[in-house]
Amino acid sequence: MAEYPQAFETIVQTLRRLPGVGRKSAIRYAFGIIGMSEEEVDEFACNLTEARKSLHSCVRCGNICEGDLCPVCLDDNRDGETLCVVEDVRALLALEKADGFNGRYHVLGGTISPLDGRGPEDVNLASLPGRIKNEGVKEVIIATNPTVDGESTALYIARMLKNTGVKVTRIGYGIPAGGDLDYADELTLTRAIDGRKEI
Amino acid sequence: MAEYPQAFETIVQTLRRLPGVGRKSAIRYAFGIIGMSEEEVDEFACNLTEARKSLHSCVRCGNICEGDLCPVCLDDNRDGETLCVVEDVRALLALEKADGFNGRYHVLGGTISPLDGRGPEDVNLASLPGRIKNEGVKEVIIATNPTVDGESTALYIARMLKNTGVKVTRIGYGIPAGGDLDYADELTLTRAIDGRKEI
Repeated sequence: MAEYPQAFETIVQTLRRLPGVGRKSAIRYAFGIIGMSEEEVDEFACNLTEARKSLHSCVRCGNICEGDLCPVCLDDNRDGETLCVVEDVRALLALEKADGFNGRYHVLGGTISPLDGRGPEDVNLASLPGRIKNEGVKEVIIATNPTVDGESTALYIARMLKNTGVKVTRIGYGIPAGGDLDYADELTLTRAIDGRKEI
Repeated sequence: MAEYPQAFETIVQTLRRLPGVGRKSAIRYAFGIIGMSEEEVDEFACNLTEARKSLHSCVRCGNICEGDLCPVCLDDNRDGETLCVVEDVRALLALEKADGFNGRYHVLGGTISPLDGRGPEDVNLASLPGRIKNEGVKEVIIATNPTVDGESTALYIARMLKNTGVKVTRIGYGIPAGGDLDYADELTLTRAIDGRKEI
């Protein structure tokens, strides 16, 4: 029996659905699962399903939350005139942790990528013009990732908002804090020079 | 909101119960979970609980299986006179994959470790003398890991079986296949010299 029992394979294949989990990790986790009692696995599974059921996308910005609106949208102390467009909730949470932005967010839930067949209708963009108008937004900061898809998405949004009168900006490019010029790639260095500021 | 919603934290904490999963991995997996629909998470959770329910320990050797006896114990072509004692099912499956052993197994389900408060009664040893007698075992190969706990467990078992008349052996120590003497530690090298064989 060089193979695992069928039910064990089911556990392995199920765990492989988690992002970044290959077969070896899935097998390690599966041994963790069979090391638990049936009751513990029931609780493990129940925690996941129950918690997933109580999490929704904020109806306004797309952030994850347990109610209709997320804490950022509910917070009256946030600057409603600045809207930061991010690819996903992960980026939103990274910016929240950095604590350097006090506006609100708009989560796209992906990028526009014609090569992968993802058009503007596949991301959360339809509600953006309405939000800008209704919430009195003065500036939209496009904070998609500096990747090919992120850049083309930024460009698309900038064009889309061209005639709305709102100021559209892109997050700054350059050398990351603590980084070393010696190790930075050429594009980053060129962008850092272009993005220089008077001191 | 620099913190995640409570339900998201529940998912993160739940996934951290998997072996070797730290907070960062758990957060990545949690985003995978919330990226699934409720139905997909239900199916994910159900797969785990159902598969766990159908997996048991083989009543004879402790291997995992779906019935009462595992495929190794059920296989009449296996050599019943040789019994290989392993720490866990992972070790058993590694030996099965290597395909170099045709006897049966005895899975301890752990090691004896007085320092960590695990005595002989905490591993699956009580049934071993009975198995040796009933199954006509002539040789017991102790294949616990070459760690401090594995060695002391091997020693304990060897002493326990001293007067049963059965031949007790320990798996060979030495340089692993494809290994480099230059990188081997001193203990491994000393053991490799001690374990030399005439060619």
